[in-house]
Amino acid sequence: MLVQGKNMRSVWWDEGIQFIDQRKLPTELELFTATTLPEVCFAITDMVVRGAPAIGATAAYGMVLAKNMARGAKKLKQTRPTAHDLFYAVDYMIKHHKKGDEALTTAENYVTDIITCCKKIGEHGNTLLKRNHKILTHCNAGALATVDWGTALAPIRLGKNKDLFIWVDETRPRLQGYLTSWELTQEGIRHAVIVDNAAGYYMAQGEIDLVIVGADRIALNGDVANKIGTYEKAVLAHENNIPFYVAAPQSTIDYHTPNGKTICIEERPIHEVTTIQGKQVYDTSARNPAFDITPASYITGIITEKGIFDPPELKDQEKNRAP
Amino acid sequence: MLVQGKNMRSVWWDEGIQFIDQRKLPTELELFTATTLPEVCFAITDMVVRGAPAIGATAAYGMVLAKNMARGAKKLKQTRPTAHDLFYAVDYMIKHHKKGDEALTTAENYVTDIITCCKKIGEHGNTLLKRNHKILTHCNAGALATVDWGTALAPIRLGKNKDLFIWVDETRPRLQGYLTSWELTQEGIRHAVIVDNAAGYYMAQGEIDLVIVGADRIALNGDVANKIGTYEKAVLAHENNIPFYVAAPQSTIDYHTPNGKTICIEERPIHEVTTIQGKQVYDTSARNPAFDITPASYITGIITEKGIFDPPELKDQEKNRAP
Repeated sequence: MLVQGKNMRSVWWDEGIQFIDQRKLPTELELFTATTLPEVCFAITDMVVRGAPAIGATAAYGMVLAKNMARGAKKLKQTRPTAHDLFYAVDYMIKHHKKGDEALTTAENYVTDIITCCKKIGEHGNTLLKRNHKILTHCNAGALATVDWGTALAPIRLGKNKDLFIWVDETRPRLQGYLTSWELTQEGIRHAVIVDNAAGYYMAQGEIDLVIVGADRIALNGDVANKIGTYEKAVLAHENNIPFYVAAPQSTIDYHTPNGKTICIEERPIHEVTTIQGKQVYDTSARNPAFDITPASYITGIITEKGIFDPPELKDQEKNRAP
Repeated sequence: MLVQGKNMRSVWWDEGIQFIDQRKLPTELELFTATTLPEVCFAITDMVVRGAPAIGATAAYGMVLAKNMARGAKKLKQTRPTAHDLFYAVDYMIKHHKKGDEALTTAENYVTDIITCCKKIGEHGNTLLKRNHKILTHCNAGALATVDWGTALAPIRLGKNKDLFIWVDETRPRLQGYLTSWELTQEGIRHAVIVDNAAGYYMAQGEIDLVIVGADRIALNGDVANKIGTYEKAVLAHENNIPFYVAAPQSTIDYHTPNGKTICIEERPIHEVTTIQGKQVYDTSARNPAFDITPASYITGIITEKGIFDPPELKDQEKNRAP
């Protein structure tokens, strides 16, 4: 991704794991370094890094830092429950370690693969985009969430010569929409941030041609766990006859989960709701589910590195899956 | 309404118009006084007072402060475009002034009538509420928005012995959900604030039995203009087979507007979106529509002081309307 005109990744290895600190964006560009497993776990839990594929990359690198592979795997898997890539990456590292690969090389291969997948998602997704399309996205499924390119934002990056306009849901409670706004600003792509409440209004006004979001975990039947609010936007898109696409690498697909009902939804601390920009709005009771489930019936297609699938077709992909 | 255990109104006359300053709530309870027409206009525009019926009350009192009735009416009608009660109250004051009433007495009658209507809305709405019902509300349609009792909150106030639980949408961008939380806290009613993105999640989980919201303007066919996000919640309630009620006095019904398409939607300054709790998140482009239109087809019933109506029945109410 472009950052101040230069190419950069959100996570990389340089004597430990280096991160763009996503807690400080969009106002400050700061790096965060993790050289121990507890620092890696903190980076995931505190959301220095977020987004399923970027968490996967972090976990792969994290396994390099683990002194004991089994204990490292256990600690990493306890950081956050919903993003499938976290579990996929840890298992990938264990599997390939058994084959005797060097751990860092294995992790770098994993990360290179994510980047390649995201670029391919961009190429497939770009075929859906027409000149002057107005596209809604929710949360940040950009390069920050995926090391580079993004999932939902990859087609938009590759299609930027089509004069697209992007509606960016601010995505309460953590306002990841501003991460998307920051990425789009860096790329010079026209966009406007709106409160999550306004997405339906612009759909009803005919101002949204297409919705693309990322995913944290996809069940075998095509149900999708993604940032809280995704379900709302999917229902609204359906009601307004607007195509609703989910973009994710196959590492986000959980072939062991038959449908969305059994996906564990993380409930995060309520101060993320009641404290905004460091200031408490009001000391009151609140609830803070971080994700929701969008049933497959609301999803027009799932864009993966292998192509664009109807949600029920996903199960046929299991046999073609990369090792 | 109860405020620190004592009865209070959100707007009243005492040598000028006195307001609970809603810009300072829920953290600080401060009063604001308007003794000139420009101060009244400022109080409406800057949202010292908000909520259609409370804006109506303010406009009625504001006409008492106007030196010239026609000029005062014009200035007041320019403050905000969407809330119907503003226009209704100004016209009411002009009509009754012609009959030679004392202006302040007329305004006090208007305000007393709002309070009576809200209490009746509460009585009618309370018939819908069952023990342990979990109710979602959006924005603040409480006593703060209506002088006393509220519209959406009136049934909840009157039904508080039913062990209700209220889900409170925080209602970005201006977070009026915290005004609702403040009112419910004062009344000792159990509730939790959620981000607007989470309402759909709790509906899909079966955690919401009923939705009640207020209204800023209701068209003759039952389409409702209300706080941005209302349309989203109505579509989601419809999809989840959850009854969706709108509570409003007949002064909110605009019998001259056939449907929602012609209702003017105020677009407010974008700093309300990009600046949160006084701090700019990111200097970027944004859009800020303050209201949306919920088509009548998503509305189970409209609760007025005269009873609960199917939206298409509203037009029959015109002939029964209070003078």
